[in-house]
Amino acid sequence: MFPISFGSDNHSGVHFTVIAALQQINTGFCPAYGDDPLTRNVIERLEALFGGDCAAHLVMTGTGANVLALQSLIDSYNGIICAETSHINVDECGAVQKNTQARLIPVKTPDGKLTPELIAPRLLGNRDQHHSQPKIVSISQSTECGTLYSIEELKALADFTHENDMYLHIDGARLANAAVALDTDLKSMTRDIGADIISFGGTKNGLLFGEAIISFHPLITADLKYYRKQCNQLYSKMRFISAQYEAYLDRELWRSSATQANKMTALLAEELKKFPEIKIVRDAVVNSLHVIFPPEWTETLREKYMFYTWDESTGEVRLMCSFNSLEDHVREFVRDVKALAEKS
Amino acid sequence: MFPISFGSDNHSGVHFTVIAALQQINTGFCPAYGDDPLTRNVIERLEALFGGDCAAHLVMTGTGANVLALQSLIDSYNGIICAETSHINVDECGAVQKNTQARLIPVKTPDGKLTPELIAPRLLGNRDQHHSQPKIVSISQSTECGTLYSIEELKALADFTHENDMYLHIDGARLANAAVALDTDLKSMTRDIGADIISFGGTKNGLLFGEAIISFHPLITADLKYYRKQCNQLYSKMRFISAQYEAYLDRELWRSSATQANKMTALLAEELKKFPEIKIVRDAVVNSLHVIFPPEWTETLREKYMFYTWDESTGEVRLMCSFNSLEDHVREFVRDVKALAEKS
Amino acid sequence: MFPISFGSDNHSGVHFTVIAALQQINTGFCPAYGDDPLTRNVIERLEALFGGDCAAHLVMTGTGANVLALQSLIDSYNGIICAETSHINVDECGAVQKNTQARLIPVKTPDGKLTPELIAPRLLGNRDQHHSQPKIVSISQSTECGTLYSIEELKALADFTHENDMYLHIDGARLANAAVALDTDLKSMTRDIGADIISFGGTKNGLLFGEAIISFHPLITADLKYYRKQCNQLYSKMRFISAQYEAYLDRELWRSSATQANKMTALLAEELKKFPEIKIVRDAVVNSLHVIFPPEWTETLREKYMFYTWDESTGEVRLMCSFNSLEDHVREFVRDVKALAEKS
Amino acid sequence: MFPISFGSDNHSGVHFTVIAALQQINTGFCPAYGDDPLTRNVIERLEALFGGDCAAHLVMTGTGANVLALQSLIDSYNGIICAETSHINVDECGAVQKNTQARLIPVKTPDGKLTPELIAPRLLGNRDQHHSQPKIVSISQSTECGTLYSIEELKALADFTHENDMYLHIDGARLANAAVALDTDLKSMTRDIGADIISFGGTKNGLLFGEAIISFHPLITADLKYYRKQCNQLYSKMRFISAQYEAYLDRELWRSSATQANKMTALLAEELKKFPEIKIVRDAVVNSLHVIFPPEWTETLREKYMFYTWDESTGEVRLMCSFNSLEDHVREFVRDVKALAEKS
Repeated sequence: MFPISFGSDNHSGVHFTVIAALQQINTGFCPAYGDDPLTRNVIERLEALFGGDCAAHLVMTGTGANVLALQSLIDSYNGIICAETSHINVDECGAVQKNTQARLIPVKTPDGKLTPELIAPRLLGNRDQHHSQPKIVSISQSTECGTLYSIEELKALADFTHENDMYLHIDGARLANAAVALDTDLKSMTRDIGADIISFGGTKNGLLFGEAIISFHPLITADLKYYRKQCNQLYSKMRFISAQYEAYLDRELWRSSATQANKMTALLAEELKKFPEIKIVRDAVVNSLHVIFPPEWTETLREKYMFYTWDESTGEVRLMCSFNSLEDHVREFVRDVKALAEKS
Repeated sequence: MFPISFGSDNHSGVHFTVIAALQQINTGFCPAYGDDPLTRNVIERLEALFGGDCAAHLVMTGTGANVLALQSLIDSYNGIICAETSHINVDECGAVQKNTQARLIPVKTPDGKLTPELIAPRLLGNRDQHHSQPKIVSISQSTECGTLYSIEELKALADFTHENDMYLHIDGARLANAAVALDTDLKSMTRDIGADIISFGGTKNGLLFGEAIISFHPLITADLKYYRKQCNQLYSKMRFISAQYEAYLDRELWRSSATQANKMTALLAEELKKFPEIKIVRDAVVNSLHVIFPPEWTETLREKYMFYTWDESTGEVRLMCSFNSLEDHVREFVRDVKALAEKS
Repeated sequence: MFPISFGSDNHSGVHFTVIAALQQINTGFCPAYGDDPLTRNVIERLEALFGGDCAAHLVMTGTGANVLALQSLIDSYNGIICAETSHINVDECGAVQKNTQARLIPVKTPDGKLTPELIAPRLLGNRDQHHSQPKIVSISQSTECGTLYSIEELKALADFTHENDMYLHIDGARLANAAVALDTDLKSMTRDIGADIISFGGTKNGLLFGEAIISFHPLITADLKYYRKQCNQLYSKMRFISAQYEAYLDRELWRSSATQANKMTALLAEELKKFPEIKIVRDAVVNSLHVIFPPEWTETLREKYMFYTWDESTGEVRLMCSFNSLEDHVREFVRDVKALAEKS
Repeated sequence: MFPISFGSDNHSGVHFTVIAALQQINTGFCPAYGDDPLTRNVIERLEALFGGDCAAHLVMTGTGANVLALQSLIDSYNGIICAETSHINVDECGAVQKNTQARLIPVKTPDGKLTPELIAPRLLGNRDQHHSQPKIVSISQSTECGTLYSIEELKALADFTHENDMYLHIDGARLANAAVALDTDLKSMTRDIGADIISFGGTKNGLLFGEAIISFHPLITADLKYYRKQCNQLYSKMRFISAQYEAYLDRELWRSSATQANKMTALLAEELKKFPEIKIVRDAVVNSLHVIFPPEWTETLREKYMFYTWDESTGEVRLMCSFNSLEDHVREFVRDVKALAEKS
């Protein structure tokens, strides 16, 4: 019905296993708002997956997951340090400010990744009543720039964050892609490195809708359930998110879906590198590839494929794959690129 | 898997037609956030259904629909007049205050319904800088008490509201049930009576998730799209709400589903009236029935059926039906009531 | 320059001692924002006055004092139980909602006073994620209706509040008038009865501007200093509020000023009672008197004296005295009333 | 009582004329909240001063003035573009976010001054529902860095702002100092260059407390009076701010006070330039001078004089004068610097 898209993992559909799970759970009546056995079971499984002694919450959207994770740990006079390119800073229409009334402190980064060195200068003035008090360092794993924190980088960041009496939040809308790229499990790259609260996204990776927040400080974030309602993120027919997460965890659907997305992106990168006309801005480590085509190529390719310009000034575009990107899609795209190369 | 529930229309599942629609739309890629042909078509159909020259917006939850409708018309210094029993006042954990920072002005009512007489005393002091300025009268149709505004009552309320330079908002989480009860169409009971902004609920009436907001002042509420994102109500894979609303409008699924819910409630009322031991608090006009059983009956019935206490002090309970309530469910409940009556 | 006013204690000027104190402190340079020896000293004196082990904060306005006291103890999902007639509910243009995003839960009272009995029904549903969680009971002492809580009533309220895991806040804009009326000291009617946070107003009782917040939970409300800045209540040239409070505490200016206000109101009551045409709605216990004059008297008296209608429907007016109300003012008013009585 | 301070114009006292004005107005009763003849007169004078057809509002604090000016023109989904060093971004503990829930978009500048070139890249993505919509460009005149916009720069900025459908806000906490430096009147540098809303500060320039907001769009900002109350900035005994502003306007006290502050800063600059050991970071154009002393000089000077470090990394300090800085203070400081120079 629609052309091939390398525009966003949001352009993907829903994994058939997920639809099947919705159908299977759709029988009879069920208590609402999470007070049902399936939800309880899925919550337990999620908590176990992240090492236990944590609290999992199911919410509706990625923005909601970020807002709630942050809100549960801060007050309005706090500051949230984030990369200037982070989703919470530029792509949520001010949802964090709307909900928390707190200050985002955006930091310029070369590649979407924060480091202790970049954060340190923003910590001066702490404890002075004139300044928003930094309380959270928020990172995205993988980042909006298609980059990835290594386990060591995560550890260093968490340590630095804690030494400065702050929390580390991970926007994990693409946590699955990061886990695949790092060839690790979810716990190793979150709880074990010292993260304080994270989201484990579903929608961008093949679910119909649904995101999970995992708090490693269940007592401190005990209010999260109230904020979830207050921030319009409590789903009434909760069993239908739970059924999706059940399917997502069974046989590690999250991993196989993310693997496909990453693999297709890697293939795309491998193929496009063969063209000297194309500038690879950043190599593909997860499921997005940033390249600069000759301007006229971009124009022509756009007639058939969906993808977004990342930087107007340079013409850099982002090519993104998802669980339902197929080798055929990549091959076709590369063929068309080749045709352009031959023509020019 | 779960017992029969008269607890809430939230306890219902999803209409099989709706699941089928999700499956059908689940092919290939699609632009996100509503920028797709199906969404555009469904929006047009919704706008036409309400008489054109209005703006329809698709959101995720009923609380979200209320928050956004209100937010699009007020500033933080405004007041929203509502019934003390209204969902926005008591059941949304302060979501309206959280998002709008405005004041709810709850009014005590005998039956969940506002009238010009009840509202008038709350309008004194207008234009004084010390007072939140009332700007919206918010009603629920049908109400949380299972009552219904007649067309004449709606008109009188809208007229009064406009004479006092305010807007009329209708929380239409159960608008379908009201339309069926009034044997009218959706436009007649909203636009034609002078409503300014309304919601047309889906989730409680058989959708998986999804609510529609219809604004009859598209220019005034042009900002609603930004608030939708900011309030965590923008769904990325929008086509999947659109597909549900398409199914909801086709062959008036909203009407047949609400008809079933109302009919089952009427049947339940008719049958329970035969027992002198049962006090009918308010007759069933839509899909809920408020009754007082002898206390020991309530206890016994609760072992098998789900339903909620409405008033602890009197033992009043609410019995609610939905699109998937069946005559069999009602008959079985009545049989069990009969058995209790015979025992006592 | 202006006529005699029984309109409000806000209509009063500034005690000459207070102006003198401003003049005296106005020499040379001084660190801003409270980082000066006089402020430190005044804070210490205030804390000692309320029994030590508490934290005093100086702010600019009464509304600011209320907002900050409440904000320091709640989150947005909390509820604040207050009398329907309370200043925070009706006279602050929604400042509490604006700043805290929390829900006010107004309770109808006969006389502006809350009781455990009136509050109890509002506590149902606690711990349910759908409901704003009541966390504070906020009362005014003396109340906006000119009534007064006895020490016993205060104790009962504080006990009830704590049993239900809530805090007791006292809006003490007229705390001085209450202390005088109860013939007690400030500590006995606040800390000793179990109040958790209070304000000790200055502006209405002869200061130029300035209010004090006293928190009896300094650790829990440690963030108040940040909220003070964030809510526009941090005064840069703080020494000039401190100098006023120093004058206010010296020789108990707060008490003598309130005594004058209460005494003049009592005299007014005593004299007006002599006229059978006048209905005394509520006797004067602090510095306001609620009466109903014959309508034409009200009209005539208004030509010369400022006072406000309290209840449009009955013609009830509020007569209020302040530190600069003089016996002459009262006598003149009574003479004019007498003339009206003789004429009719 | 305190040492000589070059720390801040907040460290200054109150001009004796201002205290005298307070004393003079302190007679009898007066309607509160601005409903008095003096306030009406002062408002009229302020509006006339800025060219008429505008609306003046008196508020309590500089932060309050900024918050209200911004709030009156934006909604929560808007963005406010400001210099990274601006007071609203770094020195108000997130007051703008708290009150407006909107996003600040801080822009790095070399000298605290925004330009069309610096702003332009932040305007991409406008009208997309994912992005906070920039609606205000907020500048400070003079800036927090002690720099000044020329009339031409202001005009260019206002034009650019309007071309992009935004408003220009001027934080005029030090507007008087700027007017003196530009040798112009207040209207020429605000209304005439196309500013949309500004503040005209009093506190930092010799008032006890009080700031004026001037809106050049009275109809658009008609709600400001409600926000003033809601944001805790409505002063009850308003005549006492009005009396100060009357004194401030009479014989242009604002100008003579600012002239003194600027002159003393210029003298300080002139004298300090004579020492080759001192690096003049930015010349004095208004009332602050940024210099780098040899580290041991800074230490020694601090024992006697109050001043703040501006940049920890370079040792840059800010020396600021105010209306009550005297030539004697400057001479004494220079003598001490000279002694240090001779010792080293």
